[in-house]
Amino acid sequence: MSQDLDQLTINTIRLLSVDAVAAANSGHPGAPLGLAPAAHAVWKQMKFNPRDTKWINRDRFILSNGHACALLYSLLVLYGYDLEVEDLKQFRQLNSKTPGHPEALDVPGVEVTTGPLGQGISNAVGLALAQTQFAATYNKSDVQISNSYTYSFLGDGCLMEGVASEASSLAGHLQLGNLIAFWDDNRISIDGSTEVAFTENVVERYKAYGWHVLEVPHGDTDLEGIANAIEEAKKVTDKPTLIRLTTTIGFGSLAQGTHGVHGSPLKADDIKQLKEKWGFNPEENFAIPAEVKNYLSEIVKKNQEGHEEWKKTFDQYKQKYPELGAEVQRRLDGKLPEGWEKNLPTYTPQDKAVATRKLSEIVLQSVYDAVPELIGGSADLTPSNLTRTTSAVDFQPPSTGLGDYSGRYIRYGVREHGMGAIMNGIAAFGANYKNYGGTFLNFVSYAAGAVRLSALSHHPVTWVATHDSIGLGEDGPTHQPIETLAHFRAIPNVSVWRPADGNETSAAYKSAISSTSTPHIIALTRQNLPQLEGSSIENASKGGYTLVKQDNPDVIIVASGSEVSIAVDASKKLAEEGFKAGVVSLPDFFTFDNQSQSYRLSVLPDGVPIISVEVMSTFGWSKYSHEQFGLNRFGASGKGPELYKFFEFTPEGIADRAAKTIQFYKGKPVLSPLNRAF
Amino acid sequence: MSQDLDQLTINTIRLLSVDAVAAANSGHPGAPLGLAPAAHAVWKQMKFNPRDTKWINRDRFILSNGHACALLYSLLVLYGYDLEVEDLKQFRQLNSKTPGHPEALDVPGVEVTTGPLGQGISNAVGLALAQTQFAATYNKSDVQISNSYTYSFLGDGCLMEGVASEASSLAGHLQLGNLIAFWDDNRISIDGSTEVAFTENVVERYKAYGWHVLEVPHGDTDLEGIANAIEEAKKVTDKPTLIRLTTTIGFGSLAQGTHGVHGSPLKADDIKQLKEKWGFNPEENFAIPAEVKNYLSEIVKKNQEGHEEWKKTFDQYKQKYPELGAEVQRRLDGKLPEGWEKNLPTYTPQDKAVATRKLSEIVLQSVYDAVPELIGGSADLTPSNLTRTTSAVDFQPPSTGLGDYSGRYIRYGVREHGMGAIMNGIAAFGANYKNYGGTFLNFVSYAAGAVRLSALSHHPVTWVATHDSIGLGEDGPTHQPIETLAHFRAIPNVSVWRPADGNETSAAYKSAISSTSTPHIIALTRQNLPQLEGSSIENASKGGYTLVKQDNPDVIIVASGSEVSIAVDASKKLAEEGFKAGVVSLPDFFTFDNQSQSYRLSVLPDGVPIISVEVMSTFGWSKYSHEQFGLNRFGASGKGPELYKFFEFTPEGIADRAAKTIQFYKGKPVLSPLNRAF
Repeated sequence: MSQDLDQLTINTIRLLSVDAVAAANSGHPGAPLGLAPAAHAVWKQMKFNPRDTKWINRDRFILSNGHACALLYSLLVLYGYDLEVEDLKQFRQLNSKTPGHPEALDVPGVEVTTGPLGQGISNAVGLALAQTQFAATYNKSDVQISNSYTYSFLGDGCLMEGVASEASSLAGHLQLGNLIAFWDDNRISIDGSTEVAFTENVVERYKAYGWHVLEVPHGDTDLEGIANAIEEAKKVTDKPTLIRLTTTIGFGSLAQGTHGVHGSPLKADDIKQLKEKWGFNPEENFAIPAEVKNYLSEIVKKNQEGHEEWKKTFDQYKQKYPELGAEVQRRLDGKLPEGWEKNLPTYTPQDKAVATRKLSEIVLQSVYDAVPELIGGSADLTPSNLTRTTSAVDFQPPSTGLGDYSGRYIRYGVREHGMGAIMNGIAAFGANYKNYGGTFLNFVSYAAGAVRLSALSHHPVTWVATHDSIGLGEDGPTHQPIETLAHFRAIPNVSVWRPADGNETSAAYKSAISSTSTPHIIALTRQNLPQLEGSSIENASKGGYTLVKQDNPDVIIVASGSEVSIAVDASKKLAEEGFKAGVVSLPDFFTFDNQSQSYRLSVLPDGVPIISVEVMSTFGWSKYSHEQFGLNRFGASGKGPELYKFFEFTPEGIADRAAKTIQFYKGKPVLSPLNRAF
Repeated sequence: MSQDLDQLTINTIRLLSVDAVAAANSGHPGAPLGLAPAAHAVWKQMKFNPRDTKWINRDRFILSNGHACALLYSLLVLYGYDLEVEDLKQFRQLNSKTPGHPEALDVPGVEVTTGPLGQGISNAVGLALAQTQFAATYNKSDVQISNSYTYSFLGDGCLMEGVASEASSLAGHLQLGNLIAFWDDNRISIDGSTEVAFTENVVERYKAYGWHVLEVPHGDTDLEGIANAIEEAKKVTDKPTLIRLTTTIGFGSLAQGTHGVHGSPLKADDIKQLKEKWGFNPEENFAIPAEVKNYLSEIVKKNQEGHEEWKKTFDQYKQKYPELGAEVQRRLDGKLPEGWEKNLPTYTPQDKAVATRKLSEIVLQSVYDAVPELIGGSADLTPSNLTRTTSAVDFQPPSTGLGDYSGRYIRYGVREHGMGAIMNGIAAFGANYKNYGGTFLNFVSYAAGAVRLSALSHHPVTWVATHDSIGLGEDGPTHQPIETLAHFRAIPNVSVWRPADGNETSAAYKSAISSTSTPHIIALTRQNLPQLEGSSIENASKGGYTLVKQDNPDVIIVASGSEVSIAVDASKKLAEEGFKAGVVSLPDFFTFDNQSQSYRLSVLPDGVPIISVEVMSTFGWSKYSHEQFGLNRFGASGKGPELYKFFEFTPEGIADRAAKTIQFYKGKPVLSPLNRAF
């Protein structure tokens, strides 16, 4: 294959990207122009099959600087993915297959949704981690079914983001040699030269993280240098590699090397000179020279042969290791082990009071051995989150003596945002990974950027979010969630569970582990809670249900988590005062919202005033209640039980407000908050 | 002063901390035992006055590892702050002055609220930045009124957090020589040895950031080494210093060097042996030897003399530079310049349609020269956020040639979380700093951890949060806020503005700049909005007001920001159909909630069905409306106007839903959502 053909391919990639941005009159031409050589060098040696984009042993390509997506879309078109030149012409248009940032759900071949800076490279760490764990679990010395790489491009913006710092530090610790990242060192960001804000020594920083760092000083032109760097990177198997690729943003453009080419289409005459300079017809847009097409289809053909080879290998594997082979096949089919959920513990009111964080540990302990794709860890709060089962082995480089790569327990360190993004990467790897991460509920907020992308990308990851209220006590307001549940409930496609007892905790995990498209946040107490009369996995699996049933109730108290048992006591108190108070447990808004309207109205019917009780912000609760009792202020440092008393989250405090609610609505017709005009 | 006296002081600090944790039976004794020598070394040479904790030229001490607060409280007691041994006995008890993490609002002498890891060191960067800017603005070669240092202690946890990475990288770039940080290198975190997750080379990383790094290998005992390191740090004026202090967590305890002493009280016999070993009476708790008291009161006395000297210097300054002196005095008094708000622009409906991000720029431009304490920047989105005024000078090391230290425009780089925490530090410096930071609204979420602390700590910082909805268009769902406003509205004490036009934008800034205790998030459009009939700074300053008044309306449409003008058009459309629709503009829930109930009921009265319209999550809007029209899904990539049409945020789409609302509530008695049972 000739250098010229490579160069022609690179220029084709460049011009497709430039034309797409021009057609949209919106987008980012600068990075595609600068990165096309590296993109070509990576892709021409990458392992992938455009006709089977979920092949488990493909190499992954992650565009962390997602604004450069015209580059990625151009590659997908050229390599014959299910994306056409016509789609490029619709770049950034409503309902097109070429949105303004790479959307994994919308574009075949896009591995993860990127754009928010720092996420992609952190997802890449998760992908590399998952591949390492998968390979260590299933590869045999005589048959290897997993040996793929994860490649990532990232820009200065990604490097400035803390989430990338966290994930990169962990990747170095974990010695993820299958991760190869390219830093597009173009010295330009939106504010202009990186000299204004970003003058640190990135190379030294990554070395300090334990990465292998290479430099390609002429990234615009030195194809051989890039290819060699990839080879060098692969030789170092116990360190992730960062390749510093010095490029010119907007390479070839009249405005190359300036901020002007970052986020605005090139001008018509600029595009014209580019095409002329590179031997393209300046009148033609979206041109794909036939020789480029042929060249790349040869690469695809070879790759598809490789894929066929792999299938044979996997067949051999299944023959030689039928049990493991069946397990891998099951995981590739996206199926959980038959009957796994029978391991979920159930409880009766006679069982003792236990903190839901402890009940969570019991669930993990009960299902861990049955579900090999269940892996997880904690952001340095293992003894508080109770996320590590007794049989767990740490996921660690074997050389450390602290665990091995088939280990399923991840020591994330105090890196919540990095953990969230890595969790997304693990989920994106496939193989049915169900992965969880523990921290205090309040610190899931540190990872808000990653949680949002879990929801948007349909990653079924699970946050084990303990210490879920003022009930945590002495650590005080800096650690006590107030707005946290409201925040995550307001994100589309997030299941935010707050179980009230053991059965509800099992239901939360049943939902989380079964899910294929919805992230879960399970809010768990530090303090003990009694096992409720009337709770069951089945009831709780509806998201909300009537716990204390009354005929013609005067009021319904709807509560979640630790407040449910107090609400039950309040209803007894109200009975003494002659009031009939029903109690509804509502552990997850998202699941409840997905029930039929008739079911929901049977739980929260017309004609009864409803008061919600939750020991945090009332924001959003008027969706399900007429009156809200909550905590619309920050908490306080003190013993948990004393705080509950101080803020009146007691049977008396709830009964008092419920009585006021009955009084207020007396004689007024009451419509269920679920009845809506449209 | 003898070495023995120093050692006795250190052991006194240690034992006070241990006794406090033991009394609470809750807390963290390990870090205070390890860090007491460094704390003593820092404090004995620090500039402060326990009787005037707001003295502008005091040195600041920031305990980033806030869980070690028993250490800080012990120092405050020993140095005669308004905190007594009796308060230490109430450690971590409800309503005490010694909460479980350092709360700046509750404890005199605590500079910033810490505990959430990584925040304190990032606040320290903000404090150092503010001191640098203040000194460069007001110091004269013959009279210097500002020369203080910022000290910070931080642990491994802080170093793992991305927010600290972001802030540290920027501090290196900005060459903040007045910042001296101590890394408590005790090799223990909650998960055990840092070997399990944190094996990077911190020293090399900080050097890569451009920091001056020193090492004190025997931090438990080498007082001279610590004191020398502080001296060395002060000699390097163009770099922040990180002192790696190798310590033993729980020094002296029988369990020293283990995770066991991190977060649990020491056992009684352990405390006994500690006291015996250090020559204290094992039967006595909270002992303060008289010689320690005398020793420290001498230090305080010297410090108070220094404070008196400074007052004389400031008097000289005021005489020599009466204009600047008056300005400094005004700022120290916490007063804005007389009449500053007269600069706020106002608009009439005849003025042209303008994006609120542009209107925000006009406000900044209009008040910038009049308000010297107004400083701010952007997280690398200056040309998008429009946060830089034409007269602004960049805050940069003069040696870079890019600005100078009196500059008021901060190039934060792509570091939203770091920016948020630095903003808190600038606010905490005092001198009436009003500081703002720009990013896209969606990426304020990256800084959720810092925003929460702004609210808890009453820092009046301002987020200029542009691109506030799907109206941003082509960048698509990764950039389009859905849950963002709900998230921040649910945090106590956050003013979340979403102005609908020029007058409302001026009102938002009037509120933000006047505020002394409430952070503001101002959500601003990318797209143009018309100037509304009926809006005014005065009206908008109530947080919500009737924009289109109707006698006996059939329905009220309440909206915010870019949807208000569409709601007005919808009301016209409804008039054509024979319906009377009032329109309420509700730019800020927080401000509206603070109005009298009678005013609020005049805006959202009984007897009229109310429909809310906002092009994002409806979560929380039922607080003010019976029906909600919003976007409870992620957005899409496309042209802004097309997205509005696609999701039916048009006069027709709103009118249709308003008509359904009228229909639904026909004949039903309607109570204002503001009427509550309790």
